[in-house]
Amino acid sequence: MDLNEYMATCIAQVERELNRLLPAEDVIPTTIHKAMRYSIFAGGKRLRPILCMAAARACGGQEENALIPACAVEAMHTYSLIHDDLPGMDNDDLRRGKPTNHKVFGEGIAILAGDALLTEAFAILALVRPVPLYSVRDFIAELAAAGGSRQLIGGQTLDLEGEHKQLNKNELQAIHLGKTAALFTTSLRLGGMTANAAPEHLDALTRFGTHLGLAFQVVDDILDITATTQELGKTVGKDIAAEKSTYPHLLGLDGAREEANRLTQAAREALNDLPADHVEPLSLLTSFLLDRTH
Amino acid sequence: MDLNEYMATCIAQVERELNRLLPAEDVIPTTIHKAMRYSIFAGGKRLRPILCMAAARACGGQEENALIPACAVEAMHTYSLIHDDLPGMDNDDLRRGKPTNHKVFGEGIAILAGDALLTEAFAILALVRPVPLYSVRDFIAELAAAGGSRQLIGGQTLDLEGEHKQLNKNELQAIHLGKTAALFTTSLRLGGMTANAAPEHLDALTRFGTHLGLAFQVVDDILDITATTQELGKTVGKDIAAEKSTYPHLLGLDGAREEANRLTQAAREALNDLPADHVEPLSLLTSFLLDRTH
Repeated sequence: MDLNEYMATCIAQVERELNRLLPAEDVIPTTIHKAMRYSIFAGGKRLRPILCMAAARACGGQEENALIPACAVEAMHTYSLIHDDLPGMDNDDLRRGKPTNHKVFGEGIAILAGDALLTEAFAILALVRPVPLYSVRDFIAELAAAGGSRQLIGGQTLDLEGEHKQLNKNELQAIHLGKTAALFTTSLRLGGMTANAAPEHLDALTRFGTHLGLAFQVVDDILDITATTQELGKTVGKDIAAEKSTYPHLLGLDGAREEANRLTQAAREALNDLPADHVEPLSLLTSFLLDRTH
Repeated sequence: MDLNEYMATCIAQVERELNRLLPAEDVIPTTIHKAMRYSIFAGGKRLRPILCMAAARACGGQEENALIPACAVEAMHTYSLIHDDLPGMDNDDLRRGKPTNHKVFGEGIAILAGDALLTEAFAILALVRPVPLYSVRDFIAELAAAGGSRQLIGGQTLDLEGEHKQLNKNELQAIHLGKTAALFTTSLRLGGMTANAAPEHLDALTRFGTHLGLAFQVVDDILDITATTQELGKTVGKDIAAEKSTYPHLLGLDGAREEANRLTQAAREALNDLPADHVEPLSLLTSFLLDRTH
């Protein structure tokens, strides 16, 4: 199978659905809806929605049936980027090659656009169709836990507190477990849930998502050093400028590459605990994320 | 019945339940949990939880059964205050007589604490017990709509855009319908839903909450002029300082008092469309909110 084609199909479906679900730009107050749409249609990779849809397939379901949670996790991811870029947080001017939300709409609207997308994530997920094993309550609780103060926001908190400090590998990993692995994992699990996946298959998706999320972050840290600003669409070397602890900093560039390989291998092993029939998209995505250049 | 006693009982139950539901201060990362608890236990009036519980009673149910949505709306209200006080929004140093969240914890943590309480609102509401007429999906959709970009966040957006402008009465009302009336109304409706209220009773609660919310805001504007800083627990005259449009500014102090009376009367009339047996707490609360001095 052609992974690029698979991803393009998923992305087209997710973008059509997000466009349908989010308030139009001319809904009053127009500013907030323009700001929400500016960031959610800013050319993101749609990685979490693709993971969600590919996990539904891996558990014997269909990608289309995972569209609602796929849009919900993308809304949550986008809110976290808008808030992360704010002057009171990372203070970034550039995201995906475009000015960040607060650079275009001002700080107040950017805070509100993030709040609105977070709220919208739950409004969207409330539309999910329950399955025999999982109720609407289960879907909502899963997303709220991943986005909460012990996981996604917990990771952001540790990240803020770790600035200008020399962190060890465990501390760095705790940040990325929260900031990246939690939403990867929940994207996969929500997709599996739409396919009525057995609990042991959700466990396998948790192990897969945890390792994949950590590997993704190690690769990100490496690219921050080795890629060009044009390739990344954001300022290169900003981790160093912000005195952020990174894997290459802790382990050296070769050590970081070994770590990415090790984590990718662990992710791949978790896939062995899923039924073999439909696991190919997740397997190809794993290699794609390790080998990417942006 | 003694309204003060009724309110004190509701408040004690809500605070016990919030304490049980929110992560403890020693849960890692401790900073975020301290910041969340700082604002949610900062001595708020718990008006929205009380409305929620009194609406359950008015619809023939019990206050205790409305505790979960009562805590959810208070979490949502508290997040909106934290974000509203940020330097990028209203830039307030004082709230309920105490330093605002970002003054104590810094701007980054305050953004995250707001995000976490918003997320927690849905985590809490997912625990609600469904009733024959209303599913978990209905409860979540109700809160997400009230908190979203057309209502609560819509009101904040209009408020931001209206600064330093001379608004007319319709524009001012649009702000308060979003910022205040939406969450009042949803607090009442969620309480009614726990009592399996008939749709026409939810409609009556919507009319009641809309007028009560607007009346509340007119009284707030009047108190910003007539009360002392000590009574209010926040800086008096800050509306004038911020060149914000207010009801007394538009209608004069006497005109604003007439408007508050008129809206309160309209709220009272909506209560006539609820069963008469248990409506006393809501009725007493209506007078209490009109006549308050802080």
